[in-house]
Amino acid sequence: MGEAFGNYQMPNDEKLMDYITSANIACGFHAGDYGVMQRTVQLAISKGVAIGAHPGLPDLQGFGRRELKISPTEAYQLTLYQIGALQGFVKAANGRMNHVKPHGALYNMAARDAQLAQAIVQAVKDFDDSLILYALSGSEMISAAMQAGLRTAAEVFADRSYQDDGSLTPRNHQNAVLTNDTDVKEQLLMMVNEGKIRTVNQNKIQLITDTICLHGDGEHALSFAKMVSDTLKTEGIIVRAPGNEEKA
Amino acid sequence: MGEAFGNYQMPNDEKLMDYITSANIACGFHAGDYGVMQRTVQLAISKGVAIGAHPGLPDLQGFGRRELKISPTEAYQLTLYQIGALQGFVKAANGRMNHVKPHGALYNMAARDAQLAQAIVQAVKDFDDSLILYALSGSEMISAAMQAGLRTAAEVFADRSYQDDGSLTPRNHQNAVLTNDTDVKEQLLMMVNEGKIRTVNQNKIQLITDTICLHGDGEHALSFAKMVSDTLKTEGIIVRAPGNEEKA
Amino acid sequence: MGEAFGNYQMPNDEKLMDYITSANIACGFHAGDYGVMQRTVQLAISKGVAIGAHPGLPDLQGFGRRELKISPTEAYQLTLYQIGALQGFVKAANGRMNHVKPHGALYNMAARDAQLAQAIVQAVKDFDDSLILYALSGSEMISAAMQAGLRTAAEVFADRSYQDDGSLTPRNHQNAVLTNDTDVKEQLLMMVNEGKIRTVNQNKIQLITDTICLHGDGEHALSFAKMVSDTLKTEGIIVRAPGNEEKA
Amino acid sequence: MGEAFGNYQMPNDEKLMDYITSANIACGFHAGDYGVMQRTVQLAISKGVAIGAHPGLPDLQGFGRRELKISPTEAYQLTLYQIGALQGFVKAANGRMNHVKPHGALYNMAARDAQLAQAIVQAVKDFDDSLILYALSGSEMISAAMQAGLRTAAEVFADRSYQDDGSLTPRNHQNAVLTNDTDVKEQLLMMVNEGKIRTVNQNKIQLITDTICLHGDGEHALSFAKMVSDTLKTEGIIVRAPGNEEKA
Repeated sequence: MGEAFGNYQMPNDEKLMDYITSANIACGFHAGDYGVMQRTVQLAISKGVAIGAHPGLPDLQGFGRRELKISPTEAYQLTLYQIGALQGFVKAANGRMNHVKPHGALYNMAARDAQLAQAIVQAVKDFDDSLILYALSGSEMISAAMQAGLRTAAEVFADRSYQDDGSLTPRNHQNAVLTNDTDVKEQLLMMVNEGKIRTVNQNKIQLITDTICLHGDGEHALSFAKMVSDTLKTEGIIVRAPGNEEKA
Repeated sequence: MGEAFGNYQMPNDEKLMDYITSANIACGFHAGDYGVMQRTVQLAISKGVAIGAHPGLPDLQGFGRRELKISPTEAYQLTLYQIGALQGFVKAANGRMNHVKPHGALYNMAARDAQLAQAIVQAVKDFDDSLILYALSGSEMISAAMQAGLRTAAEVFADRSYQDDGSLTPRNHQNAVLTNDTDVKEQLLMMVNEGKIRTVNQNKIQLITDTICLHGDGEHALSFAKMVSDTLKTEGIIVRAPGNEEKA
Repeated sequence: MGEAFGNYQMPNDEKLMDYITSANIACGFHAGDYGVMQRTVQLAISKGVAIGAHPGLPDLQGFGRRELKISPTEAYQLTLYQIGALQGFVKAANGRMNHVKPHGALYNMAARDAQLAQAIVQAVKDFDDSLILYALSGSEMISAAMQAGLRTAAEVFADRSYQDDGSLTPRNHQNAVLTNDTDVKEQLLMMVNEGKIRTVNQNKIQLITDTICLHGDGEHALSFAKMVSDTLKTEGIIVRAPGNEEKA
Repeated sequence: MGEAFGNYQMPNDEKLMDYITSANIACGFHAGDYGVMQRTVQLAISKGVAIGAHPGLPDLQGFGRRELKISPTEAYQLTLYQIGALQGFVKAANGRMNHVKPHGALYNMAARDAQLAQAIVQAVKDFDDSLILYALSGSEMISAAMQAGLRTAAEVFADRSYQDDGSLTPRNHQNAVLTNDTDVKEQLLMMVNEGKIRTVNQNKIQLITDTICLHGDGEHALSFAKMVSDTLKTEGIIVRAPGNEEKA
């Protein structure tokens, strides 16, 4: 969320807030500027959606999706900078930051690189050790956070296919994205109900599922969010932001 | 301080810390990147120098010294963003932010524009109302802060000449900068001892003096800092950061 | 045109090309990146639309619409840089650059500031003295270009109201923009047929009209372009890019 | 050269021009702004030094030295953009561009990746097929340029150690840089006189040597340039920019 920038709008943000319980808000590096950040924080508070910092690589042109070789020290620093910046708006609006989720290429690099993962986890912990780290289920990020004693939310994707080792099928593969609604619903419910996933090789593997990721950009963002939300409702599944379970 | 960026160094920072009691640390917009910010915060803490956020205009090429027409809302947002970002490093290092001082063109625009001044003051207050605002003595910034109930430190310049209305002689005037050490020392001591200044028209006017500004860039930054520090010491004047008086 | 950036799209560009004869292509400072620039240059060539460089202020967040105090030297340099950058793509595609039109706040600042106007004109002339300068009809830009011997195209706005001195009513005035189609058509035809305009005070003044500006961003960009194009066609007016008259 | 930016100076540039025959001028992405570019182009022209575009990755903070995963298409576009931008200043100053040399991580990535190499070569060729490509001796860049019919200058480093396959020892290895003047001189003369190099394993391999690279940043840039220049002079070796041989 909050991935507009200057004159460039992301018109779905307001409506999307009705279908989600956690918002990952861009912090000005891969997207989002100080105006967008303030408005998105206020929107999340008004809708009762849990606020998360969504730090990304310093690459607006690439929307943070191009890998940039940074050191663990840099990963630590850019995470801390962006969490802090978002916290400025959260604090001024009397809100509360619930979690941190790295964005795009930073998320993917840290999912498989233990050193980057540890650096990001350390930044979150040094800033506020009550924050929850949202990261790819089964990734180095989750391991690093657990080792550091940080709470985690294992994230899954309802519309992405998985490999036998639990990793996402890379986007440049043909079958990386599930485009059929029936397939998405089936995967979604298996994740939520059984904690399992059927891989591209038709194997069934375990996959811890604490939170389901939806993208805010893209043409079908809104209809997809609605479909996921409706599917879970129909099944009688109550969705709450990780960290807010106790409030139910 | 902390006005290096990437490959570009500001070699005086470490040594300057020995001559100052308050550091205004760049926050990534006009100068400073996340690496520089972390190192500068750690340096200030290790030297016992009071930490201030130094938010500037989003203009690295112009070093934040070119006026950019921003609305009060934008001034509020960019101040909040940058204070927050610096606070990330302060918090992670178990430090304490003492003050905020706008930088360059933002400082000058807000000194004379009440609306910009109020917006910046509101951002500081909304973030943490125990912070002190450092601003040009006699400016709209000081008025706005006092009206909002924020503590202030009125800033003076030992090496700049003043107009009869208490404003600085613009930099494009010939006599804007005092280049003679004797003149600087005389002005410095009159500021500190009498709370007065002799203007370019040889009038003596009152000027509240809570803090003296030194620049960290420029060839003579270090020798100038030493001279000011020595002059005050010789006169038996004890220098402490505003807000730290009680600790003496 | 070409005012997309990275992940942010400007979906009208391709369709708009059917209604225009000159395209002003953003050069990477206020909008447009190297990918967008290449695609837009290729699109203009394929549609037979005259290519113009559209240099702006270095302010992506503000879309080049916030005034930034730059010196004439800087205006010269940033114009030259951006014209050159666009020419890279024009040359590689075996196209021809027809004109230069400054963008946004740079356009407005130079319209009223003779020194900025001269600097921009000099940059265009030093780069290629066969280029045409598109600028606000009656502005300092037009004067400077004529004095320097550069060809000009005086630009008018069909949907903006005018003051008695021929300047545009500032955007923050209530009646700055004509929203009624009948009013726009009337103004358009008076501009084209009589070379005159009715001001906000109902005075009729002369206004040289060589080219009519349409914006590529905004919700109604496409329908507005179509309406203007249709109105001119209905009246039997043939539209060609300035500089291409001889080819008719 | 021309790797200053805004307020950040690179004080060696003017003096370095006396010891070199080709200048690779930063184009605003990894370093250099439009002001620096204009001044550096003028300086090179006044000193009779051959002008080369030095396009880099869009990463000012990392000085273009952090690898960024870009596609060949992006490599083509960012090369074209930057060559064009520099050409603006060259043309306005009635100069002539002699060559193109990619910078930093772009140089290294393209040295080993044939697709990136071909894309960069194509951009240079599409812009002006009389330009010379300066690239790492023995690299994919040289191969791609030769295949495309572009003139090349094979570049060697007097102060870097080499592997048996002709690649540079990576900078994070202990013996990557020769720090001893005697070693540098020995390597330099073997390169120039024999077209050979002694590798880290003490093997002697062939290495085409058309141009010797010196860095403009770093503390010892100037003294190193002087030493290399003096060594060659002492040996009676005449240095000219590649492409300028015929003028001798």
